[in-house]
Amino acid sequence: MHEPQRVRIQRETLERFCQRVFEALALCEEDAWIAAAVLVAADARGIPSHGVARLRRYVDGLRMGLMRPDAPIETLSDTPTSVLVNAHGAMGAPVSYRTMRSVIEKARAAGAAFGCVRDSNHFGIAGYYAMMALPEDMIGFAMTNSAPLAVPTFGRHMMTGTNPIAFAAPAHEEKAFVLDMSTTVVTRGKIEVYDRLGKELPEGWAVDPEGRTARDAGSLLQAMTDRVGGGILPLGGAGELLGGHKGYGLSVMVDILCGVLSGGAFGRGLYDTATSMARVAHFFGAIRIDAFRDPLAFRHDMDDMLRQLREAPPVAAEDRVYFAGQKEFEREAEALSQGVAVLSQTYEEICAIGDEQGVPAPEALG
Amino acid sequence: MHEPQRVRIQRETLERFCQRVFEALALCEEDAWIAAAVLVAADARGIPSHGVARLRRYVDGLRMGLMRPDAPIETLSDTPTSVLVNAHGAMGAPVSYRTMRSVIEKARAAGAAFGCVRDSNHFGIAGYYAMMALPEDMIGFAMTNSAPLAVPTFGRHMMTGTNPIAFAAPAHEEKAFVLDMSTTVVTRGKIEVYDRLGKELPEGWAVDPEGRTARDAGSLLQAMTDRVGGGILPLGGAGELLGGHKGYGLSVMVDILCGVLSGGAFGRGLYDTATSMARVAHFFGAIRIDAFRDPLAFRHDMDDMLRQLREAPPVAAEDRVYFAGQKEFEREAEALSQGVAVLSQTYEEICAIGDEQGVPAPEALG
Repeated sequence: MHEPQRVRIQRETLERFCQRVFEALALCEEDAWIAAAVLVAADARGIPSHGVARLRRYVDGLRMGLMRPDAPIETLSDTPTSVLVNAHGAMGAPVSYRTMRSVIEKARAAGAAFGCVRDSNHFGIAGYYAMMALPEDMIGFAMTNSAPLAVPTFGRHMMTGTNPIAFAAPAHEEKAFVLDMSTTVVTRGKIEVYDRLGKELPEGWAVDPEGRTARDAGSLLQAMTDRVGGGILPLGGAGELLGGHKGYGLSVMVDILCGVLSGGAFGRGLYDTATSMARVAHFFGAIRIDAFRDPLAFRHDMDDMLRQLREAPPVAAEDRVYFAGQKEFEREAEALSQGVAVLSQTYEEICAIGDEQGVPAPEALG
Repeated sequence: MHEPQRVRIQRETLERFCQRVFEALALCEEDAWIAAAVLVAADARGIPSHGVARLRRYVDGLRMGLMRPDAPIETLSDTPTSVLVNAHGAMGAPVSYRTMRSVIEKARAAGAAFGCVRDSNHFGIAGYYAMMALPEDMIGFAMTNSAPLAVPTFGRHMMTGTNPIAFAAPAHEEKAFVLDMSTTVVTRGKIEVYDRLGKELPEGWAVDPEGRTARDAGSLLQAMTDRVGGGILPLGGAGELLGGHKGYGLSVMVDILCGVLSGGAFGRGLYDTATSMARVAHFFGAIRIDAFRDPLAFRHDMDDMLRQLREAPPVAAEDRVYFAGQKEFEREAEALSQGVAVLSQTYEEICAIGDEQGVPAPEALG
């Protein structure tokens, strides 16, 4: 496969550009900054599926009123260790950032705290919020439910979302451990890539409306859109032989902590309509490390663990073993020195959005 | 495959028998009762791998001093939302039960709480402790690390354990959602079953010392015992195509919350020697539902979710879709009416243990 064309843009330049676009769509300065920072963090960390390639969807959502820039953020309950927020259809990132900030403040006082947000929208990479705990000597968690895309074990209709789990724990000399994973084998975006390339789907990714292995990406995506059966398999694949019931269980766990605990939408009750986006729900958590032991001793042990993992002998076909988050930190360091890499096609798209909104294009490097 | 012979024993009879065996090995009455209750719960819920079939290992561990019946349980730190305990080589179940009980009491006062136990031993089914939260209108968590059995993604040496995650959330008319899953594709016990049957291992379960698909269970088990490479694959299988890096990440997450957060042993530092068992570490958590919303409303939504899942249309080859814990609750109801099913071979083994320890055999039903 030939390498697609990319441009490099300074991280701050790209953030500022996105911020101005969001401001042009009536977000207040701080909300616009948060939404931009979360979006660009995905590109910087090498997760372009959640980066500025999504700007068009956010812009359309805001323009059409599916996401509300002026939504009143309502606190439904508040205790020393918990907070529950109704976002009333706001953008996902600003309300999520503020809720995780509040969870961290509560954990600082109480030792541990959790927060839920309901009636929200897509919040970007879950790992962003979990990582907010790292400089605070805390362990961070973030999860979200999503419109159903995954079939349960033995089932053939989509019942749960890709429902990601993010978990972050700090180290000292090593970078942090940052797990940010969907609880399905793959996400819808991967199926879309195979559709564009005309490639047959691998065994173990998805099933058709009758529950057989789905091979054709195009007809699978159509069936998923029409909600007539068929969908992505939970982590572990079809049936129980390879542990598919475990991935299915994890996706339901996420839906309980996000959708049910918040009193929001869950399961099949969660999907886009013409006048509303899915109104997803999120779950955030933070635990103070010093509630258990000295944080520096914890960080030294983390160094030891992460080194053991990345120095583990690889199989013949691979160069090395990674720990979760390692590749993303390497990409982020590269983005710092060389600029954030964005596909040329995506760059053209966001420049066109800038044009529409009266925001000058972000300058490409070199 | 023909159905193996089983006997049925009243649950309380079996519990009382195990309790007396543990008392004969110098456990105090309450510790012996807890250890027995956790062990028999596994058989009652249809998880015989963690049930009385393990009694021999516990008895040997206690007799040889690898598990200490008189270990001083030391509280290393204690806050309103956390507790850290050093079990100093005690049996896993009694110290785990008491720590989860303490976590629940703390959560009752503070809204949420967590506990770690280090230098412990095998604690039985993780789900037992998570389920202790259910009658308290709380969500429960339990995890444990274990001696390394799993290779990391792209690796070929065992670096993490089967590291189970248990999560329990209550419903109202439906049974609770109880997830209790190892973060590997399978556990060592499954490999042992294939070895006894002389069956070839399925693709995607384990790799040999060079990192290729392991097919022969016997030589794999030998390589694992000798720690020369080879091991079980993380949930999601080999490489990244089917999400193996996610299962790997989850197993490290469990090791961080158990081993690192407790200051105990983790990763490759955790294995049995001639004079000591692995000294595993556990993590427990409880969150009060009413810190977020009315527990009864939560339970009604759980009913709705669990019904939707178990009524989802199945694929052609299956009768129905389950939710996590459903099969185990059905087994438990059966055990209540007909007695706990135990393999005849296991029954003979535990009767022999009773003989050795001067405890009359548990009476089999009908």
